[in-house]
Formats: sequence, C-alpha cells, structure tokens
Amino acid sequence: MTSQRRIVIPIYPGVTHLDFTGPHQFFSRTPGVEVVVASAGGRPIETQGLTFANLADPDDLTACDVLCVPGGMGCLDAAEDEPFINAIRRLAETAQYVTSVCTGSLILGAAGLLKGRRAACHWAWRDLLPLFGAVPDSARIVRDDNIITGGGVTAGIDFALTVIAALFDDETAQIAQLTLEYAPEPPFNAGRPETAPTSIREHVLADMAEVQETRYRQAENIAARLR
Amino acid sequence: MTSQRRIVIPIYPGVTHLDFTGPHQFFSRTPGVEVVVASAGGRPIETQGLTFANLADPDDLTACDVLCVPGGMGCLDAAEDEPFINAIRRLAETAQYVTSVCTGSLILGAAGLLKGRRAACHWAWRDLLPLFGAVPDSARIVRDDNIITGGGVTAGIDFALTVIAALFDDETAQIAQLTLEYAPEPPFNAGRPETAPTSIREHVLADMAEVQETRYRQAENIAARLR
Repeated sequence: MTSQRRIVIPIYPGVTHLDFTGPHQFFSRTPGVEVVVASAGGRPIETQGLTFANLADPDDLTACDVLCVPGGMGCLDAAEDEPFINAIRRLAETAQYVTSVCTGSLILGAAGLLKGRRAACHWAWRDLLPLFGAVPDSARIVRDDNIITGGGVTAGIDFALTVIAALFDDETAQIAQLTLEYAPEPPFNAGRPETAPTSIREHVLADMAEVQETRYRQAENIAARLR
Repeated sequence: MTSQRRIVIPIYPGVTHLDFTGPHQFFSRTPGVEVVVASAGGRPIETQGLTFANLADPDDLTACDVLCVPGGMGCLDAAEDEPFINAIRRLAETAQYVTSVCTGSLILGAAGLLKGRRAACHWAWRDLLPLFGAVPDSARIVRDDNIITGGGVTAGIDFALTVIAALFDDETAQIAQLTLEYAPEPPFNAGRPETAPTSIREHVLADMAEVQETRYRQAENIAARLR
C-alpha cells in the first residue's frame, strides 16, 4: 500500500471551473488520494454561475504531493496577487509534481517555476508563456521532468489520467477512466484552431481580440517584476 | 437574436459533480443561455469533497427550456424523494428538451418520463433502465424525440455539444468546443468495458458488486410504486 497522497488545487476569482472540476473528479475517485481545493482565506469562489464553498486556506497547508493550478480569465490577476503566488511557490517546493491546466501555466510562470521549461497552455494564451521564460508546447499534455501541464480546459481530463499514472501506475489511471466512462466522442472536430472551420476560429479570435492587448501588457508587467 | 434560453440542472446529495460541471461549463459559455443549478430548498450540496452553494430552489422555478438531470451514487435516493421527483416532472412538462447525463436517466425513468423511450446511462447501471420502461442504448449520446441522454459522467461533455447544437446550431456548439479546447486525447483506451483490459473491467465490477444487488432492489421498489 502506498501512503495517502495529497493533491492541492488553489483556485481564485475568475477560474474556469472545468479546469479543476474535471481533474478533481478523477483524483477524488482514486484510492489513496486526498484532494484539497484552496482559495485565499478559504473564501468561497463564485465563477461562471457556480459557487464553491468550504475551501481550505493555502496558509494552513504545509505540503502537498501534487500542486495543480487551474486557469481562467482571472489567471493574470491571480498572478499579481502576491500572497497567492507566494503560497504557490511555497507549496511547489514541497511537491513531487508541479502541474497546471489551461492558463494555470501562466500562474506557474509568474511564480518563476517555468524558466527554461516546456509547458502547455490554452491555445489562445500560449504566446504569453515566453514572457515567463517558458517554452510553449502545443501538445495536449506536456511533461518536463516533474512539471506536468495540460492544454485548454478539457485537456484537464487527459491530464488527470497522466498525473494519476505518474503518481501510481497505468492500471490505477485506467480504473478511473472506466469508472468515469471516459471514451470521448466529440460530435464535431472543432476543438483546436488547426481543425476548426475557419469561420469558427475567426469568431473565437474576434471575441478574444478585445482583451488580447490588455492581457499581453499585464503579463509583461508581471514578468518584468519577476526578473 | 434568439431570446434567452434557460437550462435547469437539479442536483442532490451523492450527485457526481463532473456529470453537471462538464455540461455547465459548456452551457454557461454559450451566449443566450441562462444556467440555473437547483437543489431541494436551495441547500448547498457537498459531494466528493466539493461544496456547491448559492443554489436555486426548484420550487421557485416555473419553467425551463432544457431540464438536465445529472447522475451519481445518490441517484436512486433522489428518485425516492417525492418533492424532488415532482419538481422534475413539473419542469419536464415545460421543457423543450428533457435530458440527463449518466445515471440521471434513472431519475427521469423514476419520474415516469422514459416509458418506451431509448436512453443512455452509465454502462454499469444501464441494466436498471428497463425497470422504468426505458430501452437501454449503449450509445454515448441517445436522442429519442425531445429526450437527449448521455452515457457515464464524461459523456456529459459530448452531450452538452449535442444539446447546444439542438438548441441553436452546429456553429454555436463548435464555438464552445474551440473555446474550451475540446480535442480529447485519452492516454489510455480503457473508457468502455468493451475496450478496457479484462483485469481493469473485473476490478471495477468487483468494486461495484457490493452495491449491485441493493440498488437493483431499490430500483425495483421505485418502479413498483410508479406502476
């Protein structure tokens, strides 16, 4: 028997909930895993119409086996929150695996944890990774030594199976996969900019154009303070 | 412009959270959709280590365009909760689409909404559907007229895209798919009993054996009261 492994998921205002609820469901169904979801002060997080309550305070957590940072539209604001980033740094030092889903890799980057490391990110935000010294990788799951990062949102499920296999073994991951019937059959093939119809890609990019410049400048400022 | 569409997701103790957080993420990113998550009395639901708060009370909801019932180990207890089932029946009457994910179809069945209808369910619970007069279907998404049901847990994401396309059009679903980067790459092929290694399937079935007989008898009793 392996001893209990602790996975800490720090969340924040503007987190994309599926970034962590997907992995959380897989982790929490894995025997020998304790999953702790934390937020600044343990305060409830309301995001996209769901409110997550009864959260832990990262200041009460001394160590973890896996640190898993989800992404979301609020990721850069979280990256500017010094106590939050300090908690990420402190917990990362204790972790066997430092991980993220989606734009959570930008938070790891802002914490100085991705210098010279390959990392995944949501496709539309991936260009910000080099600001933090990271090497963007378009793979759905990227493993660079003890750093495991997943691509946008739904990549968190593929990511979770990879993390479970790394922590335990392939069989443990496969048991979770069968239990949660993960045999995806997307009705469309529009999940990546390379496969989506041009009109769909242009629509999504146009929706994002408004915030694109602002977030680039915000990320630059965060990176400047890091150097 | 289409008018606002309302999707109601009733949850209950013992719900599997990814059954609804997956679809919720897709629905809530779709323009023109209001997603309402409800629980008896609007009380918080704690499940698998996550607490969902600020929920609506189904008694306060008069109508919806889509009723989406998630599954979970608590599904049969929910099916025995008369006020809960009455709310399901009442909202289903107003809905353009009556839908479920995973063992949520057993709740629809217990509400008498699946008589003679084909429906999906989690693979390990599918054999209970005929007790409620439904015709089990092993497809990941099953559409029978205005009833759309998804298979186990993660099928909820494929399901959500199907529902968005039915409510609006393929383009709207594809925009959500690209935004949430849904281009799955499971690292293993163990998501269905037919594809999982024998040892994995046997392990999961052995884990479930303990509750199998109890839940069959519970479902029989619920079905008997329905007739």
